[in-house]
Amino acid sequence: MKRMPLPDKVDLREVGLRDGLQMVGQILPTQTKLDWCRDQVACGFSEIEVTSFVPPSSIPQFADAAEVLKGAKAIGGFTAAVLVPNLKGGIRALERGADKITFVLSASEAHNMSNVRRPTDASATEFEDLVTERDARGLKGKVALSAVIATAFGCSIQGEVPEDRVLDLSERLAAAGADELSIADTVGYGNPLQVRRLFAAISTVVGPLPLAAHFHDTRGMGLANVIAAAEVGVRRFDAALGGLGGCPFAPGATGNIATEDCAYLLESIGLSTGIDFERLLQLRVRLEEWLPGERIEGRLKQAGLAKTFLSAA
Amino acid sequence: MKRMPLPDKVDLREVGLRDGLQMVGQILPTQTKLDWCRDQVACGFSEIEVTSFVPPSSIPQFADAAEVLKGAKAIGGFTAAVLVPNLKGGIRALERGADKITFVLSASEAHNMSNVRRPTDASATEFEDLVTERDARGLKGKVALSAVIATAFGCSIQGEVPEDRVLDLSERLAAAGADELSIADTVGYGNPLQVRRLFAAISTVVGPLPLAAHFHDTRGMGLANVIAAAEVGVRRFDAALGGLGGCPFAPGATGNIATEDCAYLLESIGLSTGIDFERLLQLRVRLEEWLPGERIEGRLKQAGLAKTFLSAA
Repeated sequence: MKRMPLPDKVDLREVGLRDGLQMVGQILPTQTKLDWCRDQVACGFSEIEVTSFVPPSSIPQFADAAEVLKGAKAIGGFTAAVLVPNLKGGIRALERGADKITFVLSASEAHNMSNVRRPTDASATEFEDLVTERDARGLKGKVALSAVIATAFGCSIQGEVPEDRVLDLSERLAAAGADELSIADTVGYGNPLQVRRLFAAISTVVGPLPLAAHFHDTRGMGLANVIAAAEVGVRRFDAALGGLGGCPFAPGATGNIATEDCAYLLESIGLSTGIDFERLLQLRVRLEEWLPGERIEGRLKQAGLAKTFLSAA
Repeated sequence: MKRMPLPDKVDLREVGLRDGLQMVGQILPTQTKLDWCRDQVACGFSEIEVTSFVPPSSIPQFADAAEVLKGAKAIGGFTAAVLVPNLKGGIRALERGADKITFVLSASEAHNMSNVRRPTDASATEFEDLVTERDARGLKGKVALSAVIATAFGCSIQGEVPEDRVLDLSERLAAAGADELSIADTVGYGNPLQVRRLFAAISTVVGPLPLAAHFHDTRGMGLANVIAAAEVGVRRFDAALGGLGGCPFAPGATGNIATEDCAYLLESIGLSTGIDFERLLQLRVRLEEWLPGERIEGRLKQAGLAKTFLSAA
């Protein structure tokens, strides 16, 4: 199952513990979350979004956020990222020792208002303030700040999201000092042509700043969009085990791209993920045990690896 | 929901009534098959594979093949295609008035033996004989003969399928007088790079002969493969409503790419399918009523059209 490592590597980041669980009705016990996290590290994942620092009143699933982060740090050996929706959450994440903070705002004004109850520009200002806070604590180069532009390909509330708006935000967040820009198709509106065009345009605006892609598979185009992004040089992808997740403002949204299928796709086209597929499929089985009755997607678990599949890991 | 028609059109062919039903346990009544067929035509589909002329003992679902073909011809307004696994089935399809015959053989020797119990070269000879039979009946230019190369991207029985074998078969079937070559990823082993490479290579060998792509979504790469094939000029795609289907020799195979998701993807990248999406989604609802308890896939039905979606139809 091994072949010579290819020069081209890709970072596949697990977001199931955050974006995946966000939409799951049942509260997963903290210990189970940490078991999941530990298993995922053992599979070879080097970055995991372990939780979200949001008010427990808005998403009870993350009431144990500080405890999960603490447990994740104790596991070690990977970058423990935490999602935050505002400066307050960001400062909390800095104080609690997150390795990386993913700060989310929406290119769609309507979505930003629904999601974090303030205009997008106000959120961008909070990101700038978060950079200042981090640097003032001497954490520059120690805690990475990723700026996530949600609904970058369209919005289920307002419809079209102008590409110029995404480019302006990209420029502003890059200038603020983001260590990474993550471009998110929160509601599954993107198509491969659009993905190629937008990532290429953002690259032109922000230069060598690393770009990440966060796709949902709401209308089945998730993995086609991964290929499109990879083709224009994107090497950081988010995915959720079993395709868990969705968005509270995307009706019928069927969740993130499935980690196992995305990993398989990336390896198939010669992009090395460093992931142990046998372990990953074992973890995928455990996920179903942990979340009985939940709709869990992903085709690789059912079909298994192809006889012709050679992992580049 | 309309925009100016784009110059680039694509033929999306429904194979649910054949490849989809092949793996379904319950026998769909003939009248229901014809209702499905009629609805699909009303959605704008110009080609439908309506049944398979195989021995009823091997697939009882198709015991009514002649009756279905007769009913489909009575509906009219579209190309009624019939799949056949050998010369005998082909002659029966000619006699019964099929508009098009899709003759399937496998590039994998092991798969061909399992599927039709003869070596691949023997099947190719039968295709050559079928061309002769058709022409002798004065049906050249009236009944199209499509040669399907199954397991062209790998085989769940024998593993690797050499690309040279696929190219040699392509050359032979084209020389025999095929009106179309259909390249099938029967077991979901193909990846986008492989798809691009193989279709480009086949084009070089067979020149302007139309190529069709038949993808399964066994490991989630089906729609990414559609994009890859479209990029190298393929404009004919098979799909099954609700992603029905599979292959008896592909363990855990989760079926064809879903017609509704594929149509949506193609329109999204500016390839006009001529399909009425509202009607198609209504038909998709009926499919679930017709096949209670069956595993039916496809994301578009759950998520609905994006607000930003403009059909090119």
